[in-house]
Amino acid sequence: MIVIKMGGAEGVNLDAISQDVAALVKQGQAVVMVHGGSAETNLISTQLGHPPRFVTSTSGFTSRYTDRETLEIFAMVTAGKINTLLVERLQRFGVNAFGLSGVDGRTILAQRKEAIRVIENGRKIMLRDDYTGKISSVNADLLHLLLQAGLTPVIAPLALSPEGDALNVDADRAAAMVAGALKAEKLILLTNVPGLMRSFPDESTLIAHIAAKDLEQALDFAEGRMKKKVLGATEALDMGVSSIIFADGRVEHPVMEALAGKGTVISA
Amino acid sequence: MIVIKMGGAEGVNLDAISQDVAALVKQGQAVVMVHGGSAETNLISTQLGHPPRFVTSTSGFTSRYTDRETLEIFAMVTAGKINTLLVERLQRFGVNAFGLSGVDGRTILAQRKEAIRVIENGRKIMLRDDYTGKISSVNADLLHLLLQAGLTPVIAPLALSPEGDALNVDADRAAAMVAGALKAEKLILLTNVPGLMRSFPDESTLIAHIAAKDLEQALDFAEGRMKKKVLGATEALDMGVSSIIFADGRVEHPVMEALAGKGTVISA
Repeated sequence: MIVIKMGGAEGVNLDAISQDVAALVKQGQAVVMVHGGSAETNLISTQLGHPPRFVTSTSGFTSRYTDRETLEIFAMVTAGKINTLLVERLQRFGVNAFGLSGVDGRTILAQRKEAIRVIENGRKIMLRDDYTGKISSVNADLLHLLLQAGLTPVIAPLALSPEGDALNVDADRAAAMVAGALKAEKLILLTNVPGLMRSFPDESTLIAHIAAKDLEQALDFAEGRMKKKVLGATEALDMGVSSIIFADGRVEHPVMEALAGKGTVISA
Repeated sequence: MIVIKMGGAEGVNLDAISQDVAALVKQGQAVVMVHGGSAETNLISTQLGHPPRFVTSTSGFTSRYTDRETLEIFAMVTAGKINTLLVERLQRFGVNAFGLSGVDGRTILAQRKEAIRVIENGRKIMLRDDYTGKISSVNADLLHLLLQAGLTPVIAPLALSPEGDALNVDADRAAAMVAGALKAEKLILLTNVPGLMRSFPDESTLIAHIAAKDLEQALDFAEGRMKKKVLGATEALDMGVSSIIFADGRVEHPVMEALAGKGTVISA
């Protein structure tokens, strides 16, 4: 089992990824895909007159402030546009892809963060009415059901709360939790950089390997979005995923190169 | 098996429908839902600077002209926003709803209408580059798989062409084809009117029953959107659905009243 997460960042080669996934599925390899949609949500929410607002938590993580209107735009863009077009693309490459979000069949359950402590203009403030969640469980049985039917699940980063609210969840950490629940051998996180760099953005400082025990210190030099990927990798390792690869999604064979060990490989 | 199609028209009581569906599912009744999204697509496509364009075919049916940009907005709104929020609502009422569109797992296949003959300003013209489809098949096995897993499928009106293009399909006719493929006993089409009226919009002219053999003449007095519902009813009857009900979605128990025979009942 391989779980592949792909971002929507500029330069990521969707056709190349789809082609690699098609080759793997044809070989009988079970693949589950997870995608994000942050960049496109920003664009469309701005066009709709509700521009994005990002906040930085007191522990230094940046995330989208998701009021109800933002949640609905996020659902529309990720589960509607990005997911459907990715499924369409995979189908063209011969993969019988099946799109869903974590809301469908309660595939991903999350606790809503009712109030988040953020730093704004140097001051700590409390934000409420946020529809962001921290994933508590993934329904592996349902994903296995789809896989056994010959389908390749493609998951949009939404979850359901126990109270029945749809929530925005971080796609990297969703991919990590999915990989953990499925006991995947490998989790591949494709981005528009070659991997984790000691001195971002200097690609000559790419780190080829990180042992699990050294992962915490990697948080120190992980920049921006990479912080969440490192956090996701930690969670996936804890749940028994044996290898997590941060790899380049812009190359001709993004998945194959990742499987061949290119990028940053994190292993237990 | 009951297939319920609900439009997004003003006044349709989504909570009441969800509550009725929850009661049916609790009784062990298999339910599949199909929804539209035309009104909301018009709204959002206008906000995004790509207002809708409707065309009337030479045979008198009105439909959305769907260029690629419109298709992507249609997918976004129907499969992303309407579908996710409906699944969320049903989950709150205790229904383990599972959203999908016909693109997912090739659930609905359709032939793309490469060129459509329409009448514009009194002249016949040919429109190309349209991403609209006529449904050729529905994957009943996949829907049964979801139902057997205790899920209630909620279907957005998109389909996939043999060439791998996502297509906009008419939701009423999608519901009819789904009901036919599943050999449903009943197909309920919920709208914001009490049923088919002999003289629209005079509700005192509501037709309580139509026999299959009289359905074709019903096309003569069906107005606007009702034409496609009548066409869908004809297709569903042909595929073995024994009863089709056009019913009021605005009342306190829309589904229960439809099952009790209110509205317009069409039977073989």
